[in-house]
Amino acid sequence: MSGERLIYLPLGGAGEIGMNAYVYGYGKPGKERLMLVDLGVSFPDMDSSPGVDLILPDLTWLIERIDRLDGIVITHAHEDHIGALGHLWPLLKKPVYARKFTATIGRLKLEEAGLPLDTIRTIEPHPAAVEVGPFTVQFLPVSHSIPESSALVIDSPAGRILHTGDFKRDPTPIVGEGWNDALLEAIAAEKPVKAMMCDSTNVFSPHPGRSEATLAEPLTELIRGAGGMMVATTFASNVARLKTLAEAARAADRSICVLGRAMKRMITAAEETRVLTGFPRIITAEEALEVPRRNLMLIVTGSQGERRAASAALSRGKYLGFEMKAGDMFLFSSKTIPGNERGVIKLMNAYSEMGVDVVDDAGGKYHVSGHANRPDLEHMHRIFLPDMLVPMHGEHRHLREHVRIAHEAGIAGIVATNGMMVDLTGEVPKVAEHIEAGRIYLDGTAQIGALDGVVRDRIRLALNGLVMVTLILDEQSEPLGDAWVELMGLPQTGLGNRALDETMEAELTEFIETASGKILSDDDRLDEALKRIVRQVAMEEIGKKPEVRMVISRLTAE
Amino acid sequence: MSGERLIYLPLGGAGEIGMNAYVYGYGKPGKERLMLVDLGVSFPDMDSSPGVDLILPDLTWLIERIDRLDGIVITHAHEDHIGALGHLWPLLKKPVYARKFTATIGRLKLEEAGLPLDTIRTIEPHPAAVEVGPFTVQFLPVSHSIPESSALVIDSPAGRILHTGDFKRDPTPIVGEGWNDALLEAIAAEKPVKAMMCDSTNVFSPHPGRSEATLAEPLTELIRGAGGMMVATTFASNVARLKTLAEAARAADRSICVLGRAMKRMITAAEETRVLTGFPRIITAEEALEVPRRNLMLIVTGSQGERRAASAALSRGKYLGFEMKAGDMFLFSSKTIPGNERGVIKLMNAYSEMGVDVVDDAGGKYHVSGHANRPDLEHMHRIFLPDMLVPMHGEHRHLREHVRIAHEAGIAGIVATNGMMVDLTGEVPKVAEHIEAGRIYLDGTAQIGALDGVVRDRIRLALNGLVMVTLILDEQSEPLGDAWVELMGLPQTGLGNRALDETMEAELTEFIETASGKILSDDDRLDEALKRIVRQVAMEEIGKKPEVRMVISRLTAE
Repeated sequence: MSGERLIYLPLGGAGEIGMNAYVYGYGKPGKERLMLVDLGVSFPDMDSSPGVDLILPDLTWLIERIDRLDGIVITHAHEDHIGALGHLWPLLKKPVYARKFTATIGRLKLEEAGLPLDTIRTIEPHPAAVEVGPFTVQFLPVSHSIPESSALVIDSPAGRILHTGDFKRDPTPIVGEGWNDALLEAIAAEKPVKAMMCDSTNVFSPHPGRSEATLAEPLTELIRGAGGMMVATTFASNVARLKTLAEAARAADRSICVLGRAMKRMITAAEETRVLTGFPRIITAEEALEVPRRNLMLIVTGSQGERRAASAALSRGKYLGFEMKAGDMFLFSSKTIPGNERGVIKLMNAYSEMGVDVVDDAGGKYHVSGHANRPDLEHMHRIFLPDMLVPMHGEHRHLREHVRIAHEAGIAGIVATNGMMVDLTGEVPKVAEHIEAGRIYLDGTAQIGALDGVVRDRIRLALNGLVMVTLILDEQSEPLGDAWVELMGLPQTGLGNRALDETMEAELTEFIETASGKILSDDDRLDEALKRIVRQVAMEEIGKKPEVRMVISRLTAE
Repeated sequence: MSGERLIYLPLGGAGEIGMNAYVYGYGKPGKERLMLVDLGVSFPDMDSSPGVDLILPDLTWLIERIDRLDGIVITHAHEDHIGALGHLWPLLKKPVYARKFTATIGRLKLEEAGLPLDTIRTIEPHPAAVEVGPFTVQFLPVSHSIPESSALVIDSPAGRILHTGDFKRDPTPIVGEGWNDALLEAIAAEKPVKAMMCDSTNVFSPHPGRSEATLAEPLTELIRGAGGMMVATTFASNVARLKTLAEAARAADRSICVLGRAMKRMITAAEETRVLTGFPRIITAEEALEVPRRNLMLIVTGSQGERRAASAALSRGKYLGFEMKAGDMFLFSSKTIPGNERGVIKLMNAYSEMGVDVVDDAGGKYHVSGHANRPDLEHMHRIFLPDMLVPMHGEHRHLREHVRIAHEAGIAGIVATNGMMVDLTGEVPKVAEHIEAGRIYLDGTAQIGALDGVVRDRIRLALNGLVMVTLILDEQSEPLGDAWVELMGLPQTGLGNRALDETMEAELTEFIETASGKILSDDDRLDEALKRIVRQVAMEEIGKKPEVRMVISRLTAE
């Protein structure tokens, strides 16, 4: 053994869907040169991260070893792979490598963050290659639900890694390079693959995936049959779907208008980079307002029911002059990501109340997934026959199932979740170390640790409501006036319709009037005693234990 | 025209799934005698009702006309049909009519609430009948996912109503009466049905529903094939499923232990009322701990990922001495109700981390729905051929689709949502009036109106965090000490790692020191000015606008 080792360390994306960030390293233990693949975000939800704007991977481990980091490679331009670039690049300040379209989206993010654009270097796909420290990286075109998604062929002195990125097996993806078994087989024949890091999103889907091209016919038929205005939504970055929708609209003699900044930006970037050509003419909102409803198709953002997207704006009434009404049709050419159901259903019902016909993907006719299903994953395994499989891009259950499938095919596999450093040097993957891999909340402009307690306090406020008590004492610890209670997020009245704050104030006052000087002069004991009274009154009056915040002010002589 | 009319007024359950409460009335306008059908709850969620325990229908309209209410009829014992009984009966104090099993569950609820049990009268099914004011009501057995679900045949002087309740068409439901077309046809032949109020839950499911009996074989096969301990969850009230699971376990030579209070209670009630017979022997938890894992099956509550249920307790580690481990299997013999995905997925991943194999209903083999699918709804329409169809038990989109189907079959239909009073007297349904139909939140022991702002404040606290400012002034409006800032649910530091509270205090102090006596002596203006400063500092430092609560204390001379 040379003493060098090849390591893999997911800092995000392994054990969750989202926030992808994978570290590769090669060198002597503790001195490996490092490369980061992807730098994505996750999205918050009210249950676990209320008020948060975005969730970022915690890069502390990497930042502590920043002199060993040689570069950042981005596989594709989905938010869960590139979304953290503008927020976290300033902590890394290393070159970023990506293909043309991805680089364009990346530069838009850097521009918004006021960062230097030349930090991103555009890399041509295979057979071109780029050196990142000890690694030689080739971008291998794969199909996915965004243009130019790439698997990475990563050559290291310890062998070849195939990092699939997000992919599906689609020979006719409408936009971008079709899936090419022959190319993959030729690459597989070049040299053995030591380890395959593989997308696991759809490992539970038992049937082979369907091509983007299968959608054209049913979509055209649906849109042809629609009477009034047609509105369709899909993921903003699914440029192929946007094209399919637009062409179907043209075939149905409808003009196309796009609403939503993210979507317009994607189309522009795809056209500028010549990834997208022949997109039907898009008319402006002003022009669209002059077109008869029967001849209009709006393509809008907000397939996941996002409250600020165009779909939601239309569900609330007039938006940019457009107003949906009876006889119109709204199409979700998308799937609902688990956890977003409530928002999507809310939209559907709002449209239903307007008399709009809502069509979703229930029958599987108007959407195909961008990820490889189980048979396609198995196909990928067979092409490359890696020594070991390390599933990524999945929750724990996906990773575990993916390893199970690999084992069935005689391939060594390991469930490596965020923070598990895996040594790939030997015959089988070995866990080398566990490091702290957490999440950072982007909250407004602040970045806060997920475990800092800030969000925990918000959740407590939301669940329990808040009682604020203020009390003023003089320098002899004599109360100046009564305790003052303010309620937030709590019923105003308790038993017998008594005002809850007054009941609390009465109990507090009674206590303070009879409390000993010892207690009144001891902030901690006083705080504790008053809190106990507030909680007790709350339990009696409203059957609930609220959060309590005490402000005890002690006035001193001037 | 006689001057009398027949009315229908949903107070819950129409335009939502949950919280069923439907009023029927007959008599001169404004003097109708009234009957309430069902009194259910809805469940809160973090997005829209954080901290709330249960959601109840707002019965204000009914309570204002309480002298005209003759009784309450309960179709079946699901929480969304009977769950509000203990909470709202004291506002109504009228006789409750239900079949045996439902009555038993209802009495348990009244008992918990300390209410008189004899308020519930047990009614035998068709052909028995009960008079409720001007209505004659027969309980018509239908199949559903709980024993003794009943449609109601409601005869009034203005004609017959068929209120389907929740139902599916299942000739072999394992527990309770099988679906009987002949009986329904005989009833349909007796006299015409003026209006059918019909379950709409599964109107978007295009295939005929499957019988509960189809599950026995795949479940037995699955459980036979399991290696370690087997754990299965389903809805606590699905007594038929519990029996199927238990019998499958016995066939696989496993002893059965039930964990979860709700489930035990349902089995006991079903056995006591002789609805359930021949249930395999259930062993206690203590006995179960002595049984080899290979010979044990736990049936547990918590199919929706509820945090306090047995399934969740097991996912967190040891529970009542049981601990899941690698080689065990966990089965969701249930569907995930939209909105509960996050909780269920969290469970699945927790089990996956333990090495437990998780089986869910993805393939449709281990669960069947309790509601009639579209073809079964159409079958029901054809049997009774009502003059008009009024869909219920559905969100707006379900009701609308159901009306569309009725129209296709030549039946007049109307989308009547909560608060819409429909006059059924004429040939076609007519909206007679819109009344306020809202929701009441049960919060601890308090009942608060959904629009009271309490929950809105909680949501704001969770999204925005809170800044509390206290300031003490003397009787000349001179500040005594500086303003004091407390943060809750906000980052502790802003730009350049400065303490956020101190930055705010400094800005507030600067303002106060230079403020005119005019401002300092005017609570409203002072409050406004200080709030503006806090928000401005927050925007600058953390890019966020928090909630702000001011407590300005003015000390007066003794």
